[in-house]
Amino acid sequence: MTTYIDINCDMGESYGRWTLGHDEEVMPHITSANIACGFHGGDPHVMRRTVELAVEHGVAVGAHPGLPDLMGFGRRRMDVSPADLKDYHRYQIGALAAFAKACGTTVQHVKPHGIQYHMFEDDVELGRATAEQIVELDPELILMTMAMTKYDAAARTTRARLATEGFADRVYADDGQLVTRKLGKNALIADPARAADQAVRMVLEGKVRTITGKTIDVRIQTLCIHGDTEGAHRIVAAVREALVKAGAAVKPLRDWLPR
Amino acid sequence: MTTYIDINCDMGESYGRWTLGHDEEVMPHITSANIACGFHGGDPHVMRRTVELAVEHGVAVGAHPGLPDLMGFGRRRMDVSPADLKDYHRYQIGALAAFAKACGTTVQHVKPHGIQYHMFEDDVELGRATAEQIVELDPELILMTMAMTKYDAAARTTRARLATEGFADRVYADDGQLVTRKLGKNALIADPARAADQAVRMVLEGKVRTITGKTIDVRIQTLCIHGDTEGAHRIVAAVREALVKAGAAVKPLRDWLPR
Amino acid sequence: MTTYIDINCDMGESYGRWTLGHDEEVMPHITSANIACGFHGGDPHVMRRTVELAVEHGVAVGAHPGLPDLMGFGRRRMDVSPADLKDYHRYQIGALAAFAKACGTTVQHVKPHGIQYHMFEDDVELGRATAEQIVELDPELILMTMAMTKYDAAARTTRARLATEGFADRVYADDGQLVTRKLGKNALIADPARAADQAVRMVLEGKVRTITGKTIDVRIQTLCIHGDTEGAHRIVAAVREALVKAGAAVKPLRDWLPR
Amino acid sequence: MTTYIDINCDMGESYGRWTLGHDEEVMPHITSANIACGFHGGDPHVMRRTVELAVEHGVAVGAHPGLPDLMGFGRRRMDVSPADLKDYHRYQIGALAAFAKACGTTVQHVKPHGIQYHMFEDDVELGRATAEQIVELDPELILMTMAMTKYDAAARTTRARLATEGFADRVYADDGQLVTRKLGKNALIADPARAADQAVRMVLEGKVRTITGKTIDVRIQTLCIHGDTEGAHRIVAAVREALVKAGAAVKPLRDWLPR
Repeated sequence: MTTYIDINCDMGESYGRWTLGHDEEVMPHITSANIACGFHGGDPHVMRRTVELAVEHGVAVGAHPGLPDLMGFGRRRMDVSPADLKDYHRYQIGALAAFAKACGTTVQHVKPHGIQYHMFEDDVELGRATAEQIVELDPELILMTMAMTKYDAAARTTRARLATEGFADRVYADDGQLVTRKLGKNALIADPARAADQAVRMVLEGKVRTITGKTIDVRIQTLCIHGDTEGAHRIVAAVREALVKAGAAVKPLRDWLPR
Repeated sequence: MTTYIDINCDMGESYGRWTLGHDEEVMPHITSANIACGFHGGDPHVMRRTVELAVEHGVAVGAHPGLPDLMGFGRRRMDVSPADLKDYHRYQIGALAAFAKACGTTVQHVKPHGIQYHMFEDDVELGRATAEQIVELDPELILMTMAMTKYDAAARTTRARLATEGFADRVYADDGQLVTRKLGKNALIADPARAADQAVRMVLEGKVRTITGKTIDVRIQTLCIHGDTEGAHRIVAAVREALVKAGAAVKPLRDWLPR
Repeated sequence: MTTYIDINCDMGESYGRWTLGHDEEVMPHITSANIACGFHGGDPHVMRRTVELAVEHGVAVGAHPGLPDLMGFGRRRMDVSPADLKDYHRYQIGALAAFAKACGTTVQHVKPHGIQYHMFEDDVELGRATAEQIVELDPELILMTMAMTKYDAAARTTRARLATEGFADRVYADDGQLVTRKLGKNALIADPARAADQAVRMVLEGKVRTITGKTIDVRIQTLCIHGDTEGAHRIVAAVREALVKAGAAVKPLRDWLPR
Repeated sequence: MTTYIDINCDMGESYGRWTLGHDEEVMPHITSANIACGFHGGDPHVMRRTVELAVEHGVAVGAHPGLPDLMGFGRRRMDVSPADLKDYHRYQIGALAAFAKACGTTVQHVKPHGIQYHMFEDDVELGRATAEQIVELDPELILMTMAMTKYDAAARTTRARLATEGFADRVYADDGQLVTRKLGKNALIADPARAADQAVRMVLEGKVRTITGKTIDVRIQTLCIHGDTEGAHRIVAAVREALVKAGAAVKPLRDWLPR
């Protein structure tokens, strides 16, 4: 039986005169693009160009909705209600959907941006609202959640179509959480070969080695790679190549994720 | 043969803490709502509530995309290219479409907001781009244009589905243009009975009496009423009642406008 | 010995096309205006007009800096650091100072807007940073704090010039805190006569009667009146008249607050 | 008699998560920094850090106010009135002044950003309003104008303190205007030695060679160097070194410009 895996990366986070990320270099190596929708980054022109770039490379288009905080890049907690969050997501997903439609494609998935993952752990209702919103808007949409989180558990109480995410370039703690970036080098995996090893093991064996040397179980459908670091495309390319070599089918979620 | 007419009004122009317009009073009397999409007014919460209010009253939902100028309420010329404008419209129409979809409806029409009508007269390429964008995004969408304008003529060179607009509460000049608001009372028709008369004559006879007393021909599919004045709902109600009494079928464009 | 008191009110919270408050009616009755500075409300035109209106009525100009959240009107907690907050306040106070200077006056005081008072109770470092910022920018500036709060206590650990604030139109709890607005009518004093009584007692006797009927001590230098309610100017006028009648000198802080 | 010259450069145009320019490399070589004030770029944190960097290098702080168009980086014409522009400038200059004050310095000069120079040529009232605003706000402020422009002529009809600007890294036309950037390489001087030659000739001889080979007169008090190109600091360093070698005193305007 084939083992399928999706590779996702944040894209289209430039804004106006400002450029961010290495979209052109990274896009050829991924299968799903999380595209900023104007609240934390991404303006309508950037969105159009990013959707076009994704379509050109056969990459599935996803919405990466952020909090309404351009100055803070959506990385600061804001006291929004579940209903607020649903409206912000709906707006941004809709905006992206128009660019997708005009390019002959649709929005495959949604992945909340930035601080939201942390907010969801603190307030499970926000994570649940995120999943409910997807169902209300379009049950075909796939929501990315993070493996072994309260957010993932909350989303599973809804009828949302989910893809659980793991990280090839981040270090895990024994409880399945990511080691905080505040630890610097010990939190990040910058070596392409090491990231590729972690990816292969997560995808094909369902295991990941933690910071303490322990091995834990993990089940994922999509692998996240960060695209804003120098040389990001080398990590992505190495991860993809290793996965293919190990026998995995690296394809967008839309091609294989069960409904 | 039945004479059909649509009545449209700008809606959902509140923003955050600030309220504008008399949406709840006016909505019951119109057939198509031009809903602000966040650039000149309207935030995601306002958009959701406005779409819900429209659906509740059987009013068709339309996008009212503005220039990215919240402080200027989209009423200032900005030097945007045709390509820029297409991206701004696409983004906003998409955002509204998500709220419509989650409410079980679709976006019926698009009507550019504010200063854009004036920009289209100065630069016909902007008007044409507006129509082209509609076609590229969704050929079912209806674009409202203004009768007897260069914008209308430019839009007719595309394959866009068009509805020409007339004004019940504004005074016309001999050349078919609206008399500038700078003339104050002489430009506006605040008397419900007089607005109703002008509406009936435009719709059923295809004529309008100009500021000089001359009568000119005009063909329209939708009547615009301004909703931000005190007592606006009385004008709309009077116009609608007079039209029905005169034998017109007052219905949203989607119900009768040919494809 | 004369008892002095200042009366402050939030002003200039309109933005672009949107109007808020009853500035023209209220301004003649107050002595210090807390003027929005563009982040939660107030745009440069509104700021200029509001400063002009204040100067015209001999009202002292103060800055009312908000969080960078126009859509949320600065009423939502945002995870900002003390250093962030200092920069946001500095920027906004400076912007207002230019309008004051061009009008021949200076910024008398600073009063943080909206949710910040609540944030200061949760994180005393934010309140302290607010006071430190004032000292760093201009030791002549007066910072308004709220009587009987952690924020007031934190500000007193700095060299900032402080004016403690009480509320004429809000109900107090036994611990000196304001009763939450969620209690609706029981939290607000809408009757001008009752507000005037509370004001006189606070200012001349240093006492306030709480929601349970208990009487507690309170020492204030400035009285806050809310200006965004219908009939606000009647409450302000009644409060001012009662204070004068009771023998208090109602004057801007700059005229009498010791350095 | 000593020949004085100032060297100015745009600084602080980063915003939130986005970085622009090479401020740290360029700052040591200039004498006046044109600092973005939040409308087209620059946020309060960037402003603080940029002012600190300028002060550290003995560079004079100037305001670089932009149009309220973050998405367009202030590079698009907007239909603003002279009164609007005065308010926008006043707000931004004030905001910067607070950061300057807290750093123990003052705002030396104002230089309008982006498209405004072009708008001033089309509408001389906008240029005049810019100069009038300076006078109304603080007659000590220096306004930078561009040599041989209508803007410069309009500003000279006011009592504003002016410093005329020339460009070391741009090619001039016979009429004293800059050759449009649309000409690409023929409009820009990327070679440090050539830029240095042009600078020395402009400053010490009052002459500049135009694109046609003609030599025209030019009188300037400040030289602009663009800081957002790769290697910009090398051009600035070469220009400064050549000016010093040729006997010019390279100093901020505040040190020598007559009142």
